[in-house]
Amino acid sequence: MKLYAGCELQYEVPAPVPVVLMLRPRSGAGQWVLSEEYLLKPGIPVVEYTDLYGNLCQRLLAPAGSFTVHTAVVAETADVIDTAPGAPFTPVQDLPPDVLHYLLPSRYCQSDRLGPQALDITEGFTPGYDQAEAIRNWIHTHITYQYGTSDATTSAVDTAEKRIGVCRDFAHLGIALCRSLSIPARMVVGYLYRLDPMDLHAWFEAFVDGRWYTFDATQEQPRGNRIVVAYGRDAADVALATQYGPMTLKGMKVWVSAEKVTEPV
Amino acid sequence: MKLYAGCELQYEVPAPVPVVLMLRPRSGAGQWVLSEEYLLKPGIPVVEYTDLYGNLCQRLLAPAGSFTVHTAVVAETADVIDTAPGAPFTPVQDLPPDVLHYLLPSRYCQSDRLGPQALDITEGFTPGYDQAEAIRNWIHTHITYQYGTSDATTSAVDTAEKRIGVCRDFAHLGIALCRSLSIPARMVVGYLYRLDPMDLHAWFEAFVDGRWYTFDATQEQPRGNRIVVAYGRDAADVALATQYGPMTLKGMKVWVSAEKVTEPV
Amino acid sequence: MKLYAGCELQYEVPAPVPVVLMLRPRSGAGQWVLSEEYLLKPGIPVVEYTDLYGNLCQRLLAPAGSFTVHTAVVAETADVIDTAPGAPFTPVQDLPPDVLHYLLPSRYCQSDRLGPQALDITEGFTPGYDQAEAIRNWIHTHITYQYGTSDATTSAVDTAEKRIGVCRDFAHLGIALCRSLSIPARMVVGYLYRLDPMDLHAWFEAFVDGRWYTFDATQEQPRGNRIVVAYGRDAADVALATQYGPMTLKGMKVWVSAEKVTEPV
Amino acid sequence: MKLYAGCELQYEVPAPVPVVLMLRPRSGAGQWVLSEEYLLKPGIPVVEYTDLYGNLCQRLLAPAGSFTVHTAVVAETADVIDTAPGAPFTPVQDLPPDVLHYLLPSRYCQSDRLGPQALDITEGFTPGYDQAEAIRNWIHTHITYQYGTSDATTSAVDTAEKRIGVCRDFAHLGIALCRSLSIPARMVVGYLYRLDPMDLHAWFEAFVDGRWYTFDATQEQPRGNRIVVAYGRDAADVALATQYGPMTLKGMKVWVSAEKVTEPV
Repeated sequence: MKLYAGCELQYEVPAPVPVVLMLRPRSGAGQWVLSEEYLLKPGIPVVEYTDLYGNLCQRLLAPAGSFTVHTAVVAETADVIDTAPGAPFTPVQDLPPDVLHYLLPSRYCQSDRLGPQALDITEGFTPGYDQAEAIRNWIHTHITYQYGTSDATTSAVDTAEKRIGVCRDFAHLGIALCRSLSIPARMVVGYLYRLDPMDLHAWFEAFVDGRWYTFDATQEQPRGNRIVVAYGRDAADVALATQYGPMTLKGMKVWVSAEKVTEPV
Repeated sequence: MKLYAGCELQYEVPAPVPVVLMLRPRSGAGQWVLSEEYLLKPGIPVVEYTDLYGNLCQRLLAPAGSFTVHTAVVAETADVIDTAPGAPFTPVQDLPPDVLHYLLPSRYCQSDRLGPQALDITEGFTPGYDQAEAIRNWIHTHITYQYGTSDATTSAVDTAEKRIGVCRDFAHLGIALCRSLSIPARMVVGYLYRLDPMDLHAWFEAFVDGRWYTFDATQEQPRGNRIVVAYGRDAADVALATQYGPMTLKGMKVWVSAEKVTEPV
Repeated sequence: MKLYAGCELQYEVPAPVPVVLMLRPRSGAGQWVLSEEYLLKPGIPVVEYTDLYGNLCQRLLAPAGSFTVHTAVVAETADVIDTAPGAPFTPVQDLPPDVLHYLLPSRYCQSDRLGPQALDITEGFTPGYDQAEAIRNWIHTHITYQYGTSDATTSAVDTAEKRIGVCRDFAHLGIALCRSLSIPARMVVGYLYRLDPMDLHAWFEAFVDGRWYTFDATQEQPRGNRIVVAYGRDAADVALATQYGPMTLKGMKVWVSAEKVTEPV
Repeated sequence: MKLYAGCELQYEVPAPVPVVLMLRPRSGAGQWVLSEEYLLKPGIPVVEYTDLYGNLCQRLLAPAGSFTVHTAVVAETADVIDTAPGAPFTPVQDLPPDVLHYLLPSRYCQSDRLGPQALDITEGFTPGYDQAEAIRNWIHTHITYQYGTSDATTSAVDTAEKRIGVCRDFAHLGIALCRSLSIPARMVVGYLYRLDPMDLHAWFEAFVDGRWYTFDATQEQPRGNRIVVAYGRDAADVALATQYGPMTLKGMKVWVSAEKVTEPV
């Protein structure tokens, strides 16, 4: 299904501040970028580079005053995400080398501390896809989704304890639990059609039976029509905007539509 | 200056054939991609990957029948290309590692065979930028530009001998001559505003004084307003479409405009 | 100075377990590998790959029973590490792209939580080298070095609180504090000549004034004669051995000598 | 089988000249580097980096006067190379992305010009392994092996015409013919046990049925006990020493032995 998505970030910048943005989706598994657009107001020089994970990143010095970042994408997306009940665990020795680092603990996913809990949650499940799905389901049913209950320092260990959070926290917990079972897992940020309320979204992928599968603990059912914007080990790697100095987000709009949008620029 | 550019390739495909396209410009030095669009007709699955040179490549199996590739880009481009008369040669031991391979001979740029000629052409010129410019100027004044005089197997050695060719041949000869003087040089394909007749274009870059400079032996004067589509060692690396089986190009349109184009799809 | 170093790890393995080792030093800034040796007993198949940070990693399936990993290296090392009092902070917008990710928080270096403390420690110091050195010195004077006071889950935040730890904890804290000031910092593991007691060692590097500098908070004075074995964001990335299953380290020998060693194999 | 191999290059250098060496084997498919040694006389600073193909390269400025490069390796090698009669052609659309560039023509392997000849040679053979073997066998039986009949500018097209050459020419022709049939092929340089007369050697690999296979047109029978030193598109990429200025090779020793060698340094 063809989706029209985008987001607009409006900043107030007291003095020029270095920023790294990560807002240009790439074509990949499950999505083909038909067109995309990236506008800055005022227009300023930008340098684009590819990070360790293959994300296209934009570096710039946000100018003092009002600063707006507007991006939009039209992409062909998969209507249904693949599921694979029973798909087996991929032994560590058979993982591709570039997947191995998704087994390591990271800032928000302290997999080294969640092993016993992961074993509890997945007891009786077949190693592999079913474990990851058991984890996803456990998070969905045991963690309360509520805005304003977590912040930029909240980690999987915090969420496991407080049992409350938002999509980012759900993803971190899913990732940390999977990794503690030696299932590679990574953070995904992007757009989800008909997300309610609409916002940028985060979920996770787990690597089983030789490929990545999508898991979203915030949802009742598997849902397709996603546009991936960036991949990483956790939220530290995939912040849509990383700023190195003070700068205030004054407004943010996100849209995902099946019909062409008259965009808000 | 903001440019609206694009190209459309129409193929007739007798039986499904694997194709690698290289038609998605990236933001980089001298250009910022404001928006771009990539349409296939019929729509088919595509896998995108990044090649050794950082180009975004699209792999697909062109379906039997009519097959159209339409791409368009809006980019902010530099109006003037940098020139640097007198800029010094960068000694090989000071070159960045990822520039070194642009010193090696390649399919169409047999720099190992053109050393004496390069020394003749650049006699009396300061090592570095002035040598590269002397080479560019020598090609511009000694090689006749004429369509239909070369083909996909024509190399720099051929062009040095026949003294006739098109933009691709001019670039290959410039690259081979520069490399024979230990100046790294690479092939560029892309769009040039007001190229006459309009077509996809090729030129070269040479690395002197610590950075890449643009050289275009087909032009009288340095001209900006270029959109780079791909970089490589020579035309073998940067073919806009590499097909692995029979497929006929029935039509091709290229446009570069300072005003929004009602595109021909 | 030429150093002869090495380590030997003796494991008891109950059942075959996947392991990733990171024990092959590469030549690089400040060290030239004259010779190295890598022996496994029993000899088993190994696959070597390069990780995201450029480290040479060895993957294998440790066999049941006794398993020994023996590595040795002879390297020319710098006798003195560079110091640069007063060297300026490199603004984020000028950092090379492959250095940027060393600004992000990681598993053991929660730089997002240590900003206020870093500002306290570095108050009055010139941004750049002097800040990193102030941090190093503060750790050296405020954190007690003591074996057995931390473990594999101990992070910079823990160490900042408990004020006790080992080389790895000292490095994590230094890294986290530097990053919180937008100074890129990375973990280094390797050998240090005349370390007492001899062991594998960890320290950190900070990126200021356009290059990496070595900092070691466990030492009174800057000391050279180091052999780097691996770089990473923190200890999660540079574990010399990451095992994915039970396996017991029964013995470990480490040696660094200015004279040829009759190695203990 | 464990092999002790090495080479020593003795140069006379009139004035300092930049050199890139490629003489450090890496562990990989079919070989495990147990130990290696790399000595320069006089000892000078060297920078090591990884090239586009994963080879470890050493950059240095060879000093005026006598200059010696001595390298040695002890490696566990496969006694038998895999052969796979009947193994099928891998369709281009199924090739891994990092294999695709081994389909392109290169300096010494003008696959774009040898298609008809490749079709003649492989007529009646099953697409895939059998084609590559037919090519290898055709070269072995139709090209005369003779020292001193080719030089650094000799390409596959030249060899196809003159029907005479050395191991490097045999490999180039094999590569070009394979690529013209859309079989990825790459150049390999390294050591071969019991090569007679002993020298550094070159052969090629072709990618069929999802993996690389070894082919050596200089040999009667498939032979194992090889140590790969470097991979590339052709000899331009894998020169053991690329010099950017005058420097004379005064002597060269190469040894490969099943027993520990008292090395000639």
